[in-house]
Amino acid sequence: MTDEPPIALDAMGGDNAPTEIVAGAVRAAKELGVRVALVGQPEEIVACLARRGPKPDTITVVPASEVIEMDDKPAQAARHKKDSSIVVGLRMVKQGEAGAFVSAGNTGAIMAAAIMYLGRIKGIERPTLVALMPLSGKLTAFLDVGANADCKPNYLLQFAGMASAYMRHVWDVERPKVALLNIGEEEAKGSTLAQEAYELLAGSDLNFIGNVEGGDVPTGIADVIVTDGFTGNVVIKTMEGMADFIMGQLRVAIKSRPWYAAAGLALMPAFNQMRKKLDYREYGAGPLLGVNGLVFIGHGRSDARAIYSALRVAREAAQSGMLEALREIAPGRGKGEAG
Amino acid sequence: MTDEPPIALDAMGGDNAPTEIVAGAVRAAKELGVRVALVGQPEEIVACLARRGPKPDTITVVPASEVIEMDDKPAQAARHKKDSSIVVGLRMVKQGEAGAFVSAGNTGAIMAAAIMYLGRIKGIERPTLVALMPLSGKLTAFLDVGANADCKPNYLLQFAGMASAYMRHVWDVERPKVALLNIGEEEAKGSTLAQEAYELLAGSDLNFIGNVEGGDVPTGIADVIVTDGFTGNVVIKTMEGMADFIMGQLRVAIKSRPWYAAAGLALMPAFNQMRKKLDYREYGAGPLLGVNGLVFIGHGRSDARAIYSALRVAREAAQSGMLEALREIAPGRGKGEAG
Repeated sequence: MTDEPPIALDAMGGDNAPTEIVAGAVRAAKELGVRVALVGQPEEIVACLARRGPKPDTITVVPASEVIEMDDKPAQAARHKKDSSIVVGLRMVKQGEAGAFVSAGNTGAIMAAAIMYLGRIKGIERPTLVALMPLSGKLTAFLDVGANADCKPNYLLQFAGMASAYMRHVWDVERPKVALLNIGEEEAKGSTLAQEAYELLAGSDLNFIGNVEGGDVPTGIADVIVTDGFTGNVVIKTMEGMADFIMGQLRVAIKSRPWYAAAGLALMPAFNQMRKKLDYREYGAGPLLGVNGLVFIGHGRSDARAIYSALRVAREAAQSGMLEALREIAPGRGKGEAG
Repeated sequence: MTDEPPIALDAMGGDNAPTEIVAGAVRAAKELGVRVALVGQPEEIVACLARRGPKPDTITVVPASEVIEMDDKPAQAARHKKDSSIVVGLRMVKQGEAGAFVSAGNTGAIMAAAIMYLGRIKGIERPTLVALMPLSGKLTAFLDVGANADCKPNYLLQFAGMASAYMRHVWDVERPKVALLNIGEEEAKGSTLAQEAYELLAGSDLNFIGNVEGGDVPTGIADVIVTDGFTGNVVIKTMEGMADFIMGQLRVAIKSRPWYAAAGLALMPAFNQMRKKLDYREYGAGPLLGVNGLVFIGHGRSDARAIYSALRVAREAAQSGMLEALREIAPGRGKGEAG
């Protein structure tokens, strides 16, 4: 246990940094015994730690003097802020000093820096960002959600293979069902990209179950749903937008009459129960697959619970041999990832 | 008023045909004085009409012996079922015997038949299907929602111009705000298609307000939101799926305790009030823009109310000179449609 390298955690990343980030680390250290290297400005981190009681032994602090802000230009920040918590954390992964890197910071900068400092896994054409869909009873890895706005059919095949490996190694899904996001049931099934990706997926050794539509994404119909990064990003934003919109409308409707308000109050536990299912925090962070190291990117709004979950998942990934499996699936490496 | 050609209505199209279709026609005729030509199998139509009391004078029946089913192959059905209600109705538009065609039938077949029998407006590269978003207090024309899975930047510019003309002529929006569906705020804004379409829109005389994201679609942030038909179709399916999912979860949560159920019952009017905002039926049908005639395609689940609304909108479009405006915006026709 003491030989296991820690998870490097970006203490400065996200809307609630460093307070919530440190709180999540302390909870993961205390409850799960996760070893965490908090990367960032030491005074701030130490101050946050002090407010949480005696520091757990499994937590260390790694200084990084710079901060990449949420609105910094990704590539530029990754290149120039060399002593930022993101770059320092990724370097730890590169050098084997950390088993994985977790951040709720600037997504674009994390992706750019990860590609820059860790590099791609040999044979993988494009790294891809996964969103874990916690909406239905079961998990779905939905990807790409924004790493690659323009995709070729072969990228989608590689995305599906990597996500299958992830679901198998980290979430113990034995033979992940893979679906392609597509449109309509009509004669011509989707864009040229979708049609060509369909052929590749159907001819692969993945457990491909065919096309699904936008409405299927929250239902848990598949373990992996693959699409290009433009469509995927639009879909997750649309889902968030719809959830916010419907809850907002419901709130307005309930407030419109005093007796609705009383009934609404009585229903609060039921609403909370439902809202929990829409809650990304339960699953913490999505992996960036295809870079040469384990990287998990959390929602900018991540709170202590999200960070706690992300650390749990990151440790699971580090211990599971997932990275080695990803290295195996690259083309020309012999073995396929049949899932 | 008697000189005005009727709206041709596909009596056989949709999950609830012909009963609900005929009911919607009767209501529109009685309440709004809309002239309707019910196209389809006469015995069935007459039987449905008989159940609605004395036939309004403004309703006529136009026989069509064939029916294009919801699962027929679009292009094939359009080509071979020449005496179908869809083809007969579109022919009426072509020959000036109807001011517009309304159908809740097989979307792919209606699009294929409309292009086949009406042709495209000169200079318009691709017809496009619009979904009217009734979610927020104000209307948004969201397009393309499935007519063109593969798009070029110039198509998106034309879509935006046509939808602007539609919002102006039919919904009296003076200078429609046009937005481009795109991803993230990061450095590289979206796909190559989105980037090139942005340039074209920014350089046009449309009232272009820039990029919006998936979560903005239901908010009424713009009068027109344009994207390719693959993304657009995925977005509307995702919105429907999320609404169904959230309402379903809410129902489960409410049923989980007896006292929740009581509160839920008290809240029913408030729920219904909210659900109405998610209701496509209020706006009936979306226009197929760019073909040489007015065509409105309703949801397969259209009921009498949706058909009633569709007929109201179709008559408004026929009277508004919208088609003439669309003919003006095609490139090389002199005038731009500045909205």
